[in-house]
Amino acid sequence: MAKMKQVVLRAHPRGNPVPQDFAVEEVDIPSPGPGEILVRTIWLSLDPLIRFALDEKPLTGIARVGLGDPVYGGTVSKVVESNHPDYAVGDMVEVRSGWREYAVVEPAKQVMNFRKLDPAMKPLSAALGLLGMPGQTAHAAVIEIGRVAAGETVIISAAAGAVGSFAGQIAKMLGARVIGIAGGPAKCKALIDLSFDACVDYKAPDFEAKLAAAVPDKIDVYLDNVGGDVSMKVLPHLKHGARMPIIGFISYYGDGMEAPGPDKLPGFLRFVMSRGLEVRGFPGAMTAGPKALVELADWLASGKIRNVEAVVDGLENAPAAFAGKFGSNDHIGKLLVRVGEE
Amino acid sequence: MAKMKQVVLRAHPRGNPVPQDFAVEEVDIPSPGPGEILVRTIWLSLDPLIRFALDEKPLTGIARVGLGDPVYGGTVSKVVESNHPDYAVGDMVEVRSGWREYAVVEPAKQVMNFRKLDPAMKPLSAALGLLGMPGQTAHAAVIEIGRVAAGETVIISAAAGAVGSFAGQIAKMLGARVIGIAGGPAKCKALIDLSFDACVDYKAPDFEAKLAAAVPDKIDVYLDNVGGDVSMKVLPHLKHGARMPIIGFISYYGDGMEAPGPDKLPGFLRFVMSRGLEVRGFPGAMTAGPKALVELADWLASGKIRNVEAVVDGLENAPAAFAGKFGSNDHIGKLLVRVGEE
Repeated sequence: MAKMKQVVLRAHPRGNPVPQDFAVEEVDIPSPGPGEILVRTIWLSLDPLIRFALDEKPLTGIARVGLGDPVYGGTVSKVVESNHPDYAVGDMVEVRSGWREYAVVEPAKQVMNFRKLDPAMKPLSAALGLLGMPGQTAHAAVIEIGRVAAGETVIISAAAGAVGSFAGQIAKMLGARVIGIAGGPAKCKALIDLSFDACVDYKAPDFEAKLAAAVPDKIDVYLDNVGGDVSMKVLPHLKHGARMPIIGFISYYGDGMEAPGPDKLPGFLRFVMSRGLEVRGFPGAMTAGPKALVELADWLASGKIRNVEAVVDGLENAPAAFAGKFGSNDHIGKLLVRVGEE
Repeated sequence: MAKMKQVVLRAHPRGNPVPQDFAVEEVDIPSPGPGEILVRTIWLSLDPLIRFALDEKPLTGIARVGLGDPVYGGTVSKVVESNHPDYAVGDMVEVRSGWREYAVVEPAKQVMNFRKLDPAMKPLSAALGLLGMPGQTAHAAVIEIGRVAAGETVIISAAAGAVGSFAGQIAKMLGARVIGIAGGPAKCKALIDLSFDACVDYKAPDFEAKLAAAVPDKIDVYLDNVGGDVSMKVLPHLKHGARMPIIGFISYYGDGMEAPGPDKLPGFLRFVMSRGLEVRGFPGAMTAGPKALVELADWLASGKIRNVEAVVDGLENAPAAFAGKFGSNDHIGKLLVRVGEE
């Protein structure tokens, strides 16, 4: 029987994940049953949200990855066998089929992030980036929740991430002044080359002074991808009534519901109240609809927005790349693993 | 020269204020200069927000009460001398003239909470309650920010306070199911007698079980007056997309920007993101306009809403009453000191 590689969880990460939390296995390629399809993975998304699923007790609403289970995650995959009338061999799909080279999928049971892709989509990997969940999240954060208008000042934490780099470009296109916050001079330079007006390195010793200098007229919208210390330093620079979409908080992925003290919630709520802030969360894929995807595709095709991505080759390198996402790698945009050829 | 009493700050409170943080002094009644008026205090508001002003380093935007200074605070006062053409002896005003029996006020320099009162307002003390800042705050929280609709479930922390008891009545009038959270059975009983559907005592050992039982269908709007532990226990019961107006956080008044750990901000932000919450602050007096006051006056006059208040007699009792506000007193509604006769 033909074999394939898959990546399973070996240990629930403590804090930031390390490559040793995962194991690469060789297993038989499965066979599709009635109503099922077999897909071959081409692109695998390394989505920071998956970090939640690796916890021993994940948040409500997030499916758990058990020890020994393949890690789940979004992919762009090609149908190679089909027992389902709507899917033909050769079709391209976006599907959460996980960190493996092949997977059996039952289309009737897919509830989210499952769709047949237009074969004209170029590049196909954009289905996991600008033309997928991160793009929709950025669109919703900037347009629906953030309501960014021309002339406003927008600041974005974790700006070098997929959502951050897309959101910054959208805000810039709308006429805002856009400042990124990112870790290290390489990421900051890449963001300015992309289109950002300024970028502040949160790892630099003079971060607070540089931040203050970058927003002399204060901030209208703070797209928060981070939470934690960075946010507490941004809050004093928000205008009264500023909007603060909560997109993520990568600084906390490893910490469960509580982190070591002191307790920053009082200070946060004081700012919310005294500044009349509007703090809003939304789950990535659920708010932005097909209309957002059509707009994003137009912007991509016309060159207004770039689908910024970084590619790692080979499924066996997924653990190190994923662990690096919480560490020190210098890519900007969507991080992808090229698992197989188109 | 005639004498009057005033209350000054003796020490910046550490945590909850105690009566010994204040001193009662006898000083000369001042004389109004050109363009000024002399007012005699009738009703003094004991507003929990004043707690912020007593800190050694108050929040941005909050004027500080220095050691030896009279504590400031809203009053209903009567004009007893006037050097200003718009104010006649006998006029009633709402003015932030502070914890003293008489005060000189320069109308041209008053920027907030200063207005001549309609002598027909009954009771006159409502200018500091339902027909003043607390009423406007409750109106804005329930209607503007909370957008409470008939059939929704609304939960209110610090429900026994002025804002809480007004907000609960407004939400109830709009057809919502209203649950209060308050400290102790006496306050809870008073809230149910007022109009609340249920009340949960956060001091009871079975608080969490009672809370869960009170909201079997989850919560649409959480009016948060408290922050801290109570909020962290309410969050799991919020519906997806629930609204959370931040009205105050009395549990933190004494703690500066940080409290002892663990840090609850990560858990809070996780809920904001995973539940798609809308968390919004607003400064009490600035969002609700005159239209709110007209509506509130109609509701009061027609008996739909009660101006719930508790009265303490004598300025010298203000420190103990204010300290009790952060402790264990059992009143519900607006806490007032009757400083003088109408």
